[in-house]
Amino acid sequence: MNVNPVQLFDVDSSTFSYILVADDNTSAVIIDPVERHWQRDLAHLERLGLKLAYVLETHAHADHVTSAGKLVDVTGARAAVPSGCGIMPAEVQLKDGDVIRFGADERIEVLHTPGHTAGSVSYVWRGNVFTGDTLLIDGCGRTDFQSGSSQALYDSVIGKLFALPDTTRVWPGHDYKGQSVSTIGWEKRHNARLANRSKEDFGALMAALKLPKPILMDIAIPANQNLGLPHGA
Amino acid sequence: MNVNPVQLFDVDSSTFSYILVADDNTSAVIIDPVERHWQRDLAHLERLGLKLAYVLETHAHADHVTSAGKLVDVTGARAAVPSGCGIMPAEVQLKDGDVIRFGADERIEVLHTPGHTAGSVSYVWRGNVFTGDTLLIDGCGRTDFQSGSSQALYDSVIGKLFALPDTTRVWPGHDYKGQSVSTIGWEKRHNARLANRSKEDFGALMAALKLPKPILMDIAIPANQNLGLPHGA
Ligand SMILES: [Fe+2]
Ligand SMILES: [Fe+2]
Repeated sequence: MNVNPVQLFDVDSSTFSYILVADDNTSAVIIDPVERHWQRDLAHLERLGLKLAYVLETHAHADHVTSAGKLVDVTGARAAVPSGCGIMPAEVQLKDGDVIRFGADERIEVLHTPGHTAGSVSYVWRGNVFTGDTLLIDGCGRTDFQSGSSQALYDSVIGKLFALPDTTRVWPGHDYKGQSVSTIGWEKRHNARLANRSKEDFGALMAALKLPKPILMDIAIPANQNLGLPHGA
Repeated sequence: MNVNPVQLFDVDSSTFSYILVADDNTSAVIIDPVERHWQRDLAHLERLGLKLAYVLETHAHADHVTSAGKLVDVTGARAAVPSGCGIMPAEVQLKDGDVIRFGADERIEVLHTPGHTAGSVSYVWRGNVFTGDTLLIDGCGRTDFQSGSSQALYDSVIGKLFALPDTTRVWPGHDYKGQSVSTIGWEKRHNARLANRSKEDFGALMAALKLPKPILMDIAIPANQNLGLPHGA
């Protein structure tokens, strides 16, 4: 069954958030919610008549602040985060192979996919993979700060994400070009950075990017490691 | 099964387009595609590995131009449009109760829901309804030009759309507030214009709106009645 998430967008940071609806229509999970949209996202859950079971993060973001802590406070949902990201207040610290369950019969599998950050994970659910900034449509996340490693990202994408079935739908953490969804099969054949490229070539390509530091980085990372809640509050 | 469409957005006109993916992963239908995004939309179909079976329009839009004709030319898909909209080059002219089939087992039901325009239709597919500008999230389309009628819109929403199951997911033709999806149940109880309101009240409310004419109207309507293709081309 082609079950898609509800894809939500933040224009300021070009961030995607996702609502995964349980097939029994009782509950949902949200992935990578954005601070300024917590009311929008709660309104979506309310309109759909869904209880929020989990807030998931793919990593500690450097370019926007999460609403995870706020959503947990307001709804009583649980926060589940990658164990390698230093996100301390989260109740559930995830590692590779863990399974998150919600609704009557939903299973989200955790894949540890380091490279954009050392802790980054991807989430697999009903033929979909939520890749955070590990794999983007026709691209990938940067690997030059925040414990990033182009070698690790290459291994994560080639070894883990490209090992998923070709029809798996890829839902990225960002897009800057109006793209919304892709598939593993397409990215394997066409991804401008990763298709048909050696690890050495990829390392050289990433090293040559020389990207500016995200404007919000020094605020966003510590904030996100506290689930977006004020420190000491 | 909670099967959602892929929801695509045009920032300039706040228009949603939708890709409906057949469960057999062979083919798709697109609803209300926007002219400037025809390449984006084809790229989505290509990444998902889908053949375009139909291009559907909910009505002849006044605020943006469709890419339907272009998509038909490029892909060989069929255009199916409401019979009451004067969209002449479309192969399939739809009326209330018609069913559009694609993939192995997909059925889209056509509901004639006049009011925003006399020809407007909504499309029902696997627990989802695509309402065009008849029913918006917490609102509705204008009824003051282009054969619009507040009385007809009231009857369409109360009599036809609100008769769908409460859990039916509502995917509108526009949203101006960052909202993406709702349900019939929520709109029945909370829609600011239509919930718990008499036909007389609703008519008075719509008559008092005094909205400006859409900037693109005199270009968009004739263009859309030609599926967005140049006249005489
Ligand atoms: Fe990131
Ligand atoms: Fe319209």
